[in-house]
Amino acid sequence: MFESAELGHKIDKDTYKAEEAQLRQALLEAQYELGQRADFPVLILFAGVPAAGKGEMVNLLMEWLDPRHVTTHAFGKHSDEERTRPPMWRYWRILPPKGKMAMLFGGWYAGAMFETLSGGREAVFQREIERIAHFEKMLADEGVLVLKFWLHLSEDALNKRLKKLLGDKLTSWRVTDEDRGFARHYGDIIARSRAMLMRTSSADAPWRVVEGADANYRALEVGKQLLSAMRHHLGRNSVRQSRVEAAQIVPSVDGLRLLDTLQLDHANDRKDYKNQLEVLQGRLNLLTRHPQFQNLSVVMVFEGMDAAGKGGAIRRITAALDARQYHIVPIAAPTDEERAQPYLWRFWRQLPSHGRFTIFDRSWYGRVLVERVEGFAPVADWMRAYGEINEFESQLDDANTLVVKYWLAISKEEQLARFQEREQTQWKRFKITDEDWRNREKWDDYVTAASDMIDRTSTPSAPWHLIAANNKTYARIRVLEILCETIECRLDKKEKKSQA
Amino acid sequence: MFESAELGHKIDKDTYKAEEAQLRQALLEAQYELGQRADFPVLILFAGVPAAGKGEMVNLLMEWLDPRHVTTHAFGKHSDEERTRPPMWRYWRILPPKGKMAMLFGGWYAGAMFETLSGGREAVFQREIERIAHFEKMLADEGVLVLKFWLHLSEDALNKRLKKLLGDKLTSWRVTDEDRGFARHYGDIIARSRAMLMRTSSADAPWRVVEGADANYRALEVGKQLLSAMRHHLGRNSVRQSRVEAAQIVPSVDGLRLLDTLQLDHANDRKDYKNQLEVLQGRLNLLTRHPQFQNLSVVMVFEGMDAAGKGGAIRRITAALDARQYHIVPIAAPTDEERAQPYLWRFWRQLPSHGRFTIFDRSWYGRVLVERVEGFAPVADWMRAYGEINEFESQLDDANTLVVKYWLAISKEEQLARFQEREQTQWKRFKITDEDWRNREKWDDYVTAASDMIDRTSTPSAPWHLIAANNKTYARIRVLEILCETIECRLDKKEKKSQA
Repeated sequence: MFESAELGHKIDKDTYKAEEAQLRQALLEAQYELGQRADFPVLILFAGVPAAGKGEMVNLLMEWLDPRHVTTHAFGKHSDEERTRPPMWRYWRILPPKGKMAMLFGGWYAGAMFETLSGGREAVFQREIERIAHFEKMLADEGVLVLKFWLHLSEDALNKRLKKLLGDKLTSWRVTDEDRGFARHYGDIIARSRAMLMRTSSADAPWRVVEGADANYRALEVGKQLLSAMRHHLGRNSVRQSRVEAAQIVPSVDGLRLLDTLQLDHANDRKDYKNQLEVLQGRLNLLTRHPQFQNLSVVMVFEGMDAAGKGGAIRRITAALDARQYHIVPIAAPTDEERAQPYLWRFWRQLPSHGRFTIFDRSWYGRVLVERVEGFAPVADWMRAYGEINEFESQLDDANTLVVKYWLAISKEEQLARFQEREQTQWKRFKITDEDWRNREKWDDYVTAASDMIDRTSTPSAPWHLIAANNKTYARIRVLEILCETIECRLDKKEKKSQA
Repeated sequence: MFESAELGHKIDKDTYKAEEAQLRQALLEAQYELGQRADFPVLILFAGVPAAGKGEMVNLLMEWLDPRHVTTHAFGKHSDEERTRPPMWRYWRILPPKGKMAMLFGGWYAGAMFETLSGGREAVFQREIERIAHFEKMLADEGVLVLKFWLHLSEDALNKRLKKLLGDKLTSWRVTDEDRGFARHYGDIIARSRAMLMRTSSADAPWRVVEGADANYRALEVGKQLLSAMRHHLGRNSVRQSRVEAAQIVPSVDGLRLLDTLQLDHANDRKDYKNQLEVLQGRLNLLTRHPQFQNLSVVMVFEGMDAAGKGGAIRRITAALDARQYHIVPIAAPTDEERAQPYLWRFWRQLPSHGRFTIFDRSWYGRVLVERVEGFAPVADWMRAYGEINEFESQLDDANTLVVKYWLAISKEEQLARFQEREQTQWKRFKITDEDWRNREKWDDYVTAASDMIDRTSTPSAPWHLIAANNKTYARIRVLEILCETIECRLDKKEKKSQA
């Protein structure tokens, strides 16, 4: 991995001058085309050996490019707003929109590098690596051009450089304890870094190792690789077309689907719905005032056919909560800022901090429901969404965010009855639109899509709860019960942990 | 102010039941119309005596309304991201877009209330009050419907309530130290609150004082006031039309304008431009590494005719900075999320945290330049912008954010020469568009608008720097000199302060 980057590459001044002028202009033109077309963003990530010129390289690129359309990000300690969200939240926050560029110091490798540097546990390191692979795969699938540069120095070169920096009062402050640590454990760290680079080099986002010793060589090498990658990406007819078509999901041979097997009617023998409701709301309210709840957050997802009772169920939950604690996000058409980002971006930006609920009325599952059924997303895009969603929810779980997902299931007849009632009730009219009637015609396709969705995204930490919802009161009680149980279960685990 | 809210208002259960049903439905319909039209947002702010039912009232409104289109915000300690921006930043962050509603606990009165409660200094209190008045005036002018409720209790009623809450284990935790303090100093605090309410009651956003003792009365009173205000706002033909037309600015009788008097040419007798540049860039770089710079941030504004050299001047600055320290914001057409907010919102969201620069290539001054000249904004809107901008920049100054503003002045002949050069140079072609030629036809209007702008927004803490820019190298040197001097001046003041 690093062998070619210890050869002592060098470019003389005249060659550099001549090539630099051309390169700058070509880069500027590529950047201009990127901005005009605005159909993908460019992310450039720099990692590597200390003192190998990361900072200088980024500063130089900012000089070469039109800096008004490039942002640069270094990542220090997490801010308190970042601390209670999944670690990847900070990277989602700064993703450049289509047509723009961003340069990152370390970026999402900072965590894994830290594990490497501090000789951390192998399991944590492995986990980080997998997370990164998922993230980069998603970015590539969304059309983001990701370039990863490792600026390298041999052990000798690093030591010489640090010595030189330390020898001069004007530069000695630049050498951090971390840099010294890197130099001391050079062999070990490089070995682990090599493993990391090999496991995160993919066809879409390979690592590009560049020797950092000679500034001229480094600059031309990075600049030319960037130019070539941008030109190649711009040259593709369309981001979509180049994606391999995914395999279709074939229905099971007997045509039997999960949702067909649900028993949807539940007699309302429970006359005491009001009582039950009050007891459950009280129970939920107490849970949210549990001291440990301040270290938890809850993301709720409501899906189901139109008129399945999502809104009503949500109101029975929020009635038990303090308005300061929750935020409901109804999913409608994305804004133009959202359209300029990867699909999951609009959900990442709504994640709650600890102690709070975010309730999604429809959600990221739209990708594998309405977008699949209506053909808004190509097959390859909604097929990959299952894996992306599982990864997203697993990150939430790791960050102490409970993911509680409901599918409210009603029969086709029940939906018809509710549609008719809505049309006849003065103040419910706005709840029924032509689109609802159109969706109803595709009932069967939605059942298929929802059955696949549940199969593929019900995980131990974020299971789907199928709620028989022909009877509204029964459904509301079940929704509340499941929410209370889920929170209780997590609080119990926490208590046991703190006792142990 | 509070007399009518100590009369012991009471609504019996039957009356309440009957009226509540109607009110809910009417509110829901008003909210639906608001969402459909999406031409203004609604902000409801609750303040008042402790235990007067603010929390209950907000929770109840969330039950009455469709909670999916309402957000609720309480404001505790500032997060570390909020701490290094102006105090109002946190409120700008949560402004609801057009068509949506938000309910705030205390909101921007939290600071002033705190001063009131802690018997703070009169000058600080005064300052807060003025800031609030400006902010609410701006919101009203932008069409935002602002409702401010003060939920009141007499001293007697408050004491009884606290006693009751404290007497029950299940509720005693609700009584905070702050509440006790309020009760202890009831008379004083109410006197100061009265002053605050009177001074912040405006025609656009009057305080509505509601007795909080009886839950039924409180609910109907607040609900009906909200309904009436929403209906009234919805009933206006258009937000714009109802605004009084502002007076036109009449040119001075002799027609002489500030910018006409500028000497634009400076001989480039300084052969050592490169040397000067290097010295200044070094000076700037050192300044950004001054320990005290970590408690400062810098907002730079570049304005000027097309081809005045804004981009070139910016690059000479960023070349001296570390790419991690700055962010350039080129002002283009607003996104749809920005269009759904008050004018200044898109600039607030770009403010730097301490230790950083945000460089605006064109800025909020577009309101009084291009929008005035092209007629994009009605006269009343750009006229009020002068005051709003001064207030904005004064808040930045208070938050240790230096505001450095440049007008790069070139002659009409110089512009022509630069346009022609751009058209003839291969890689500069993208810098010249038909729009640039169209703008040039309105040269004279722009000079008038810019002269007015400089007159009205050059303040001691954020003065305009007029840069003669026919000579590019001269202009770049001046821009850098002024930036260095401004930072030095502030660092000096800080050092003197810390020594004193």
